[in-house]
Amino acid sequence: MGPFSDLRVVEGSAFVAAPLGGLTLAQLGADVIRFDAIGGGLDYRRWPVTDDDVSLYWSGLNKGKRSIAFDLSRPAGRELATALITAPGEQAGLFLSNFPEAGWLADARLRALRPDLVYVNVVGNPDETTAVDYTVNAASGIALATGPVGSAFPVNHALPAWDIATGLHAVIGMLAAERHRRATGEGQLVKISLADVAFTMVANLGFLSQAQVTHANRPPLGNDMYGAFGRDFPTRDGRRVMVVAISLNQWQTLVRATGVEEHLPAIERAFGADFAKEEDRYRARDAIAALLTPWFESHTLDEIRTAFDEQGVCWGPYQTFTQLLDDDWRVSEKNPVFADVDQPGIGVLRTPASPLRFPADPPVAPLAAPLLGMHTDEVLADVLGLSAAEIGRLHDDGLVAGAV
Amino acid sequence: MGPFSDLRVVEGSAFVAAPLGGLTLAQLGADVIRFDAIGGGLDYRRWPVTDDDVSLYWSGLNKGKRSIAFDLSRPAGRELATALITAPGEQAGLFLSNFPEAGWLADARLRALRPDLVYVNVVGNPDETTAVDYTVNAASGIALATGPVGSAFPVNHALPAWDIATGLHAVIGMLAAERHRRATGEGQLVKISLADVAFTMVANLGFLSQAQVTHANRPPLGNDMYGAFGRDFPTRDGRRVMVVAISLNQWQTLVRATGVEEHLPAIERAFGADFAKEEDRYRARDAIAALLTPWFESHTLDEIRTAFDEQGVCWGPYQTFTQLLDDDWRVSEKNPVFADVDQPGIGVLRTPASPLRFPADPPVAPLAAPLLGMHTDEVLADVLGLSAAEIGRLHDDGLVAGAV
Repeated sequence: MGPFSDLRVVEGSAFVAAPLGGLTLAQLGADVIRFDAIGGGLDYRRWPVTDDDVSLYWSGLNKGKRSIAFDLSRPAGRELATALITAPGEQAGLFLSNFPEAGWLADARLRALRPDLVYVNVVGNPDETTAVDYTVNAASGIALATGPVGSAFPVNHALPAWDIATGLHAVIGMLAAERHRRATGEGQLVKISLADVAFTMVANLGFLSQAQVTHANRPPLGNDMYGAFGRDFPTRDGRRVMVVAISLNQWQTLVRATGVEEHLPAIERAFGADFAKEEDRYRARDAIAALLTPWFESHTLDEIRTAFDEQGVCWGPYQTFTQLLDDDWRVSEKNPVFADVDQPGIGVLRTPASPLRFPADPPVAPLAAPLLGMHTDEVLADVLGLSAAEIGRLHDDGLVAGAV
Repeated sequence: MGPFSDLRVVEGSAFVAAPLGGLTLAQLGADVIRFDAIGGGLDYRRWPVTDDDVSLYWSGLNKGKRSIAFDLSRPAGRELATALITAPGEQAGLFLSNFPEAGWLADARLRALRPDLVYVNVVGNPDETTAVDYTVNAASGIALATGPVGSAFPVNHALPAWDIATGLHAVIGMLAAERHRRATGEGQLVKISLADVAFTMVANLGFLSQAQVTHANRPPLGNDMYGAFGRDFPTRDGRRVMVVAISLNQWQTLVRATGVEEHLPAIERAFGADFAKEEDRYRARDAIAALLTPWFESHTLDEIRTAFDEQGVCWGPYQTFTQLLDDDWRVSEKNPVFADVDQPGIGVLRTPASPLRFPADPPVAPLAAPLLGMHTDEVLADVLGLSAAEIGRLHDDGLVAGAV
């Protein structure tokens, strides 16, 4: 079920952005059929992997899809994939890909077979040269605004944030073009590049205009927030917490919870500051932090949690992935967005559904990923209408493969 | 124009996620009307600001919208906002908000006035307690997987990546619910939380399942890629570059461009490695980097660019925001996604459009942000149908305000 349960999307993809787009649609009910080369694409063994060399990355990004494997090195295998992409059906003819839009995947070739095709093509740079999350992030300015105060060295973050934003934009492009097709009957080729997503976002967030207006770059600030009071503190039991006081109310709850109120006027006088003002709290942030640190150092995480939650402070503990998994109700089965699901080839994993909650549709439960080629015969039969004998011949010819 | 030029969306918002959702729709042609309290919301002076205290952050996130200002502290002002949210029109009745869905903004109250309302509500935690990008990121595990090798301290990245992913998910939720309404006539309340977005994404990317399967956390790796060869190098002229060799082809182009081929067999023997394998290149990455570093240290960025682009190496320079603005064609007017636009109150800024490129629709050119309240009278007249005399009375009563 889910809001897109009437749609069928064919995905030709590898790595993060395009597979995440397909995942997002699959988790909202669409029938997403990912095709791969027999033996898997470039991302099929991408780390992290299990001891049996099964990729946790691949399975994470392909949940809820159907998988079909073709011999894409031979024309006859590419013809089968072409037939899948351009298969008839009012709610089909949706193709999401980050393969080069050229050769057998050229828009003109596919559109000749299905004129109303909606084709979303994810590329690296706007001129279609190669770029990946890492190179785009390096160019974006973000890496040189991340890391310790005073650092002139870039810091890469562990999250492929531009891949994520690009994959979600690809979904928006797909939905926009599908909407246009329903209204007009027209398909179209939609292009989205990692670099455009990254650099337009850096502009939307004010980083670029700040550079243009001030001729200066926002420096790295360690774990401090920019322009408001917020930073990390160590706890008595060796943990760290992130504390944020953007609004006046957030500031007041923090002051109350930590009991520092009586000492603030002296700091305000020393800095000529008025701590009712967000910018003055930012300006005097090191002094404020110095005043607060002993309180954190003398309380455990549990004590801080109790004090802060009572006052409604905006804060959170730093957690490792194992702590997130073991200690946080938000990724437990208390949260219906997660469930324990048996992942073929791996075992039971805490598995997410879509984070979108639609009351008008039955939710799509968390789903496992397929094994590579698990749905080869099923898709050949129910989408391409092939008989068991025809499917058998394709296997005999090595043009298709099922799951091992 | 643009694919959503038939839609009108009302936005009640502050900070990043919900405003970014509205921005994304406005940049694709929707009539997005953001309402604020007279004098502006909590984000109206958010840093970075100009010397005149105009927020570059606010203007960046509200481009292409119409702005209307109400006295939201008084019931009559809230009634005007209510009328705007629930105004008739087949393509209206779309509301995007990160204000608490309670009191005058409770779904039940608004839905009684417009039963087919599509209401997308962005919250912090799934139980609607407070969370912001910083606290969610701290909990996600990413901060403890970012930073130098061997570090046990969290590193916050400068990009509000979870806000971005949440704002884009909010758009997907809006489009899904609008599609459902066109098919069935039914509206609905869609909820999306920052925490669900972050933690489902950490699960989708394999970080969480790696922790579950191995009972261990991915450690911070400095600027190294995980599971493949990729890292930063210093250049002769004091710059740094990011180099990525995930695929075999990318590896071979890097080897050719740097001329290290003859020395690789010795390293392969020393490590028992086969550099045709992605995982072996990762395992021996420090030795490979040591071999490559002298080449980078003896070439300038321009020399590296020439050598790498000739071979098709996957790489990119690290840039500050000013370097991105000044040196990179991808944010210049050579890229139609950017243009120089006069931003009222600020001046001419390099301004982005949507990164999505739809050939079937005339593109939406890069647009400026409004001044706060710039469209108050226009919206009162054309959406709420008020006369000039009625609008004048609202101004006299201080219930609405225009731009100063």
